[in-house]
Amino acid sequence: MTPPNDATAKKAPAKSSDKIFDITTGPLTGSAKIYAKGSERLQGVNVAMRAINISLKAGEPPVVVYDPSGAYTDSSEKIDIAKGLSPIRAQWVEARNDTEEYVGRPVRPEDNGYKEYQKIEVMQFPRSDRKPRRARAGGNVTQMHYAKKGIITPEMEYVAIRENEGRELAADAMKGGESFGASIPKIVTPEFVRDEVARGRAIIPANINHTELEPMAIGRNFKVKINGNIGNSAISSSIAEEVEKMVWATRWGSDTIMDLSTGKNIHATREWIIRNSPVPIGTVPIYQALEKVGGIAEDLTWEIFRDTLIEQAEQGVDYFTIHAGVRLPFVPLTENRVTGIVSRGGSIHAKWCMAHHEENFTYTHFAEICEIMKAYDVSFSLGDGLRPGSIQDANDAAQFAELKTLGELTKTAWEHDCQVMIEGPGHVPMHLIKENMEKQLEACHEAPFYTLGPLTTDIAPGYDHITSAIGAAMIGWFGTAMLCYVTPKEHLGLPNRDDVKEGVIAYKIAAHAADLAKGHPSAQIRDNALSRARFDFRWEDQFNLSLDPDTAREYHDETLPADGAKVAHFCSMCGPKFCSMKISQEVREFAKTENALDKNAALALDETTAQKGMDDMSKKFIEAGSEIYHKVG
Amino acid sequence: MTPPNDATAKKAPAKSSDKIFDITTGPLTGSAKIYAKGSERLQGVNVAMRAINISLKAGEPPVVVYDPSGAYTDSSEKIDIAKGLSPIRAQWVEARNDTEEYVGRPVRPEDNGYKEYQKIEVMQFPRSDRKPRRARAGGNVTQMHYAKKGIITPEMEYVAIRENEGRELAADAMKGGESFGASIPKIVTPEFVRDEVARGRAIIPANINHTELEPMAIGRNFKVKINGNIGNSAISSSIAEEVEKMVWATRWGSDTIMDLSTGKNIHATREWIIRNSPVPIGTVPIYQALEKVGGIAEDLTWEIFRDTLIEQAEQGVDYFTIHAGVRLPFVPLTENRVTGIVSRGGSIHAKWCMAHHEENFTYTHFAEICEIMKAYDVSFSLGDGLRPGSIQDANDAAQFAELKTLGELTKTAWEHDCQVMIEGPGHVPMHLIKENMEKQLEACHEAPFYTLGPLTTDIAPGYDHITSAIGAAMIGWFGTAMLCYVTPKEHLGLPNRDDVKEGVIAYKIAAHAADLAKGHPSAQIRDNALSRARFDFRWEDQFNLSLDPDTAREYHDETLPADGAKVAHFCSMCGPKFCSMKISQEVREFAKTENALDKNAALALDETTAQKGMDDMSKKFIEAGSEIYHKVG
Repeated sequence: MTPPNDATAKKAPAKSSDKIFDITTGPLTGSAKIYAKGSERLQGVNVAMRAINISLKAGEPPVVVYDPSGAYTDSSEKIDIAKGLSPIRAQWVEARNDTEEYVGRPVRPEDNGYKEYQKIEVMQFPRSDRKPRRARAGGNVTQMHYAKKGIITPEMEYVAIRENEGRELAADAMKGGESFGASIPKIVTPEFVRDEVARGRAIIPANINHTELEPMAIGRNFKVKINGNIGNSAISSSIAEEVEKMVWATRWGSDTIMDLSTGKNIHATREWIIRNSPVPIGTVPIYQALEKVGGIAEDLTWEIFRDTLIEQAEQGVDYFTIHAGVRLPFVPLTENRVTGIVSRGGSIHAKWCMAHHEENFTYTHFAEICEIMKAYDVSFSLGDGLRPGSIQDANDAAQFAELKTLGELTKTAWEHDCQVMIEGPGHVPMHLIKENMEKQLEACHEAPFYTLGPLTTDIAPGYDHITSAIGAAMIGWFGTAMLCYVTPKEHLGLPNRDDVKEGVIAYKIAAHAADLAKGHPSAQIRDNALSRARFDFRWEDQFNLSLDPDTAREYHDETLPADGAKVAHFCSMCGPKFCSMKISQEVREFAKTENALDKNAALALDETTAQKGMDDMSKKFIEAGSEIYHKVG
Repeated sequence: MTPPNDATAKKAPAKSSDKIFDITTGPLTGSAKIYAKGSERLQGVNVAMRAINISLKAGEPPVVVYDPSGAYTDSSEKIDIAKGLSPIRAQWVEARNDTEEYVGRPVRPEDNGYKEYQKIEVMQFPRSDRKPRRARAGGNVTQMHYAKKGIITPEMEYVAIRENEGRELAADAMKGGESFGASIPKIVTPEFVRDEVARGRAIIPANINHTELEPMAIGRNFKVKINGNIGNSAISSSIAEEVEKMVWATRWGSDTIMDLSTGKNIHATREWIIRNSPVPIGTVPIYQALEKVGGIAEDLTWEIFRDTLIEQAEQGVDYFTIHAGVRLPFVPLTENRVTGIVSRGGSIHAKWCMAHHEENFTYTHFAEICEIMKAYDVSFSLGDGLRPGSIQDANDAAQFAELKTLGELTKTAWEHDCQVMIEGPGHVPMHLIKENMEKQLEACHEAPFYTLGPLTTDIAPGYDHITSAIGAAMIGWFGTAMLCYVTPKEHLGLPNRDDVKEGVIAYKIAAHAADLAKGHPSAQIRDNALSRARFDFRWEDQFNLSLDPDTAREYHDETLPADGAKVAHFCSMCGPKFCSMKISQEVREFAKTENALDKNAALALDETTAQKGMDDMSKKFIEAGSEIYHKVG
C-alpha cells in the first residue's frame, strides 16, 4: 500500500478535447487512494481502497475504508473522459477464453430517440474499434456459472480483498450484533465469495463488456451496499451532468449506479457513463424500448424489447431491471390501492397487458432473456413493478403476489446460472418492514434483496431521503443487501448534483448503521476512531473520518473559524466551561493517577468501603487542580 | 371551528416598541388556525389546531393536525413580544384557589452572569407587576396531585381535545400497528388523561407561572412528541435570535423547547422565551448554577443550586433536567469508555463528586427538590448524565447503573406527587435500541421516556439529524414518549435558524413514523390524504399536506416552475410519457368501466377463466384509447 499524500479535491475539466465535461477529481480531504495486492490470479491488478490518515499525535494507523470511487480519487491518475477508464478486466475476460469479439448491433437513430432523417445532436463517445464480446455459441460466462463449476475468478478474489478492510484489526472493535440469520465471516476469502455466488446468495454484477469495472458483490453476508440513481429525462439534464453525477455519487460512496435516462440520447448517455464508470451500471431497458415506440406502451413488442437488451448488453450494462413479475392477473389487485402502480416499468407493462389482454412478454419470454443474460453476464434485478407507493398500499396482495412470482423466476434464472437480485419496496410503515424481508428470503431462496428505501411515512416530500433512510437502515439490518437511495427531490423533481450527494450520504448512514447492527466485523473501527478523535479534540481527524469531511469542517467553522479552534478543547456548542468531554477527561485523568475508586465496590454501591480515603483524595484533587479552562490556541 | 382562510407566512417585526425582534408569524401555506370548543371546565378557552385545506375538486374535508405553534400562526392574532402571549391558564390556576401570589426572589446581577457593579447589557422583558405564584404552605399543585385525587383539570381536558384530531374519522385509515404494550385509546377522554397522569405514565409539564402555555401531554399512549433545543452560549447567539428560534421551532412542530443557554444573560433570555412560548419550556438548572460560581464545578453548592431552582420556577420553567442519577460510585464506571461522560450536566456533577468525594447533592437533597417542584408544578426530567456518547459505550454498566437509580428516584418523586420523565441516550447501534426501552419501562415503572436520538452511528457529523432520526423513529415506535431533536450541527457548532428547522422536520418524521408503526388511530389520515393528492396530481394539496410545504413547492418548482405544471399530470422526474401514476390511473379507469377482470380469479391465477372475453376487451381498450399524453396547462 502506498502512503496517503494528497488531500485536495478539485473540480477540473477532464482532459477531454471538447471541454464539455467538468469532472470532480482528487482524493477526499485527509484521505489517499491505496492499493492492496492480490494473488497471481489478479494478473497484476491491485485492489483500490481509501486510507483516512490520522494525525501523528494520536499514534493510530490510518483507517482503511471501502472505496467505490475509482481512479477519480487517485491523485496520481490522469483522467480522460473521452478515453474512459483503464479496462482492468479485459485481460481477465480474455484469459477465460470462452468469449468472442463480434461485430455488434449497429447503433440506430431510434436508439437515441431520433428519426432516421435526423442527425444526432450530442457528442458520441469515441468508441473507435471497440467491439463487443459475448459467450461463444452455447456458452455461459456468468460469475455464477464459474462459481458453480468451482472456479474462483479474478472478480471473486478482487471482491474478497476489498470486503476485508480492517477486519484483521477488528477483534476489539465490535459491539455484538444481531444478524437475523446472515453468516458474516470474520475474514472474507475468495472461496467464500465463490460459494456465496454459487448458491445465489450474492451476485457480482459484471458484464464482460464493462471491462472498466472494479468488481463488487451484493449479498447479505457482505457489506451493505447502496445504489444511486441518475439519468436525464425528457424535461431536463444533459450528458455532461449525468457523467459528473456518476463520478460525484461514487465519490461519496455509491456502490452501483442506475442510469434511468429517458427521452433523447439514451444510448449516447449510457455509453459515456459505462466507459467512465468504476462501479456496476444498471438500467431499466423497458424505458428505452418505450422511447423506440414513441411512448405508446401498447406498441411495445417482444422483438423491440429483445433488441434493446442486446443493444445495452453490448455496451456493458451490468444489471437489468426486468419487471417479469407484473403479470396480467395481478393488475386488478391494484384497483383499490391509494396510489395504484408507482413503478414506471410496472405501469408500462401493466398497460401493455391490459391493452392486449396478454401475459407480460418478459414473463412469457423469460427463458430467452436468460439466454441473453448469460451470454454477457448481465445480472437480473427482478423489478418490483407492483411495489407499494404509499403507506396504505404496503404489504398488500398485489405486492406479495408479484414477490412469489419473482421467487419462481429466480429458480428459472438459476437453472441458467444467471445471477439474480430482487427489488423491493417502496413505502412501508416500520412495523411492516420485517415482514418484507422475511417473505423475500423465503419466496426468493435468499437471492439478494435490493430495496428502494422503504419510506416510513408519506408526509414529508422534500425530506424523503430521511423518511426512507429510517426504513433503509432497518431493512438493511434485517438482511437487505443493497439499498437504492432516495434523494430530497423524490416525488418532486429530478435530483441535481447536490441532491445526489444528500441521497448518497443518507444511504451511507443507513448502510453503515445496518452493518453495525448486523455485527459486521470491521464496521465499528471507523466509529471508534472518530469517537476517539472527538474525545481527544482532534478536530481534523474527526472531520476526515466522517462521511463528508467538507460539510463537517464547514459547519464547525461557521461559528469557530480560526485555525486555533481546530485544536481547542471545546467547541461553539458549549463553550470552554461546559465542555463535557473536557471535564470528563480531567475526571478520568485524576481517577487514573490516583486509582481513586474501586470499580467493583462502585458496582456494588458499597459506599462505606468507597468512602475510605475519599477525604484524602478530595484534598489531593483540589491541590493538583491547576486552572482547568485553558485559553484557545 | 372557524374555516381556514389565510395562507401567507411572513417574517414581520413583532409589534414590540424596540424593533429588535423579527418573529415569523402567519399560518403555514394552505393551513389555517382553528379552535375546538371544550366543556365549561375550560372557562372559554378553546383548543388550538391546524386545518390543512384540500382543494375543492377533491371533495375532501380539511385535514386537521396537532399544532403546537400557538398564536403566531393565527392570522387574526396581534403579536406583541414585549407583552407576551395571552395568559390563558391564569384563570384556571386562580380558580383552583390553592396558590398564592408572593414577592418573588429579586433578580440579581449574577443571575445574568454579571458582577454586582456591572450593568446588565440587554433589554429586560417588561415584567411590570407580574408576581410569581406558588402553592400555599404545605400545598401541592402538580397535575399528578390533582389526578390522584380524581380531579380532571382544565389542562387535562385541553390535552384530551388536542390529542383527538381526526380520530372520529380514523376507522378506515389504519394499517394495523405493533405498539409493544402501549394502550392507545380510540378516543382520548379527559378521564383517560387523568388516569395516565395519576399512574405516572404521562406528564403534563405546566408550571403554574407559565400561564401562556397551551397544555400538552408526554406519554406513550399519546402522540409521540418532539423537543427542540435552543439557547445561546458564551460564544454566540443573542436573545432576539433565541426567541425567534423558539417561535420558528414550534412553527414546524416542536412540542416543547429546552432553553440550554449558558454564558451571560441567561435569566433575561429565559424570561423573554417563557413569556412568549405556547409550549412547555425545559431547562438544565445546573448550567446557570455553574455560571453563578464562575464556571468552577467544585465551587457549586446545594444552596446555590436550590436558589437557582426557585429562580427558574418563579419564572415559569415547566421541566427541569436534574442529573440526580450521576452518583459518585458510578463515575469510575466510565473510566474505560471511548468518550467518557458526554452530558454537560453529568460531567459537572461528576467533577464535583470527584473533587469533594461526596455524593451528588441533587441525589442527597432529592426530597427537598421535590418540595420545590410540587410548589410550582415543575416536572422532573431525570437526566441521563451517564448516557453513551459513542457506539462503543452504548448500554454499558455506567448507563444502566444510572437508569436503575433514576427508577428509584421516580418512586420518591411520585410519593411527592411530582411528575417525572426519564431522559435516555444518546449513541446506540440499532440492535441495542430495544433493550434501552425495555430496561427503562421496567426500571422506571412506565414513567415517560425522553431520548436524545439515539444516533445509530458515530461517523456522520454534519448529518446527525439523520443518524439520530433512524434511532429516534425506532425508539419512538418501541415506546419513547418524546424525542429530543438533533440538528445537523450536533458535535460541530450551535444550530442556527435553518438548522433548527432541519432538526424539527427530521424529528417530526421520526415521531410520525413511530405513531404509524404503533397503530396510532389518526396518524395515517394525513399520509392517505397526501398520497391521494399525489395520485390525483393535486400538487398544491401535496405540498400543503407535507411537513414543510415551502420546501416541497420550491423543489418542485426548480425544474417545473410554471403554474401550469401544478396541474400537470406528470412531473419532471419522469416526464409525461413515463408517469406511472398517470398510466396507472388509465389502467384503473379502464378496468373499472369494463369490469375487466375478476379479482378472485386473478388471485387464484385462474387464467383460463380470465382469458374469457379478453380479446374483446383488448379491442375496446384500443378503440376507447384517446391520445394518452396530454399537453400541460
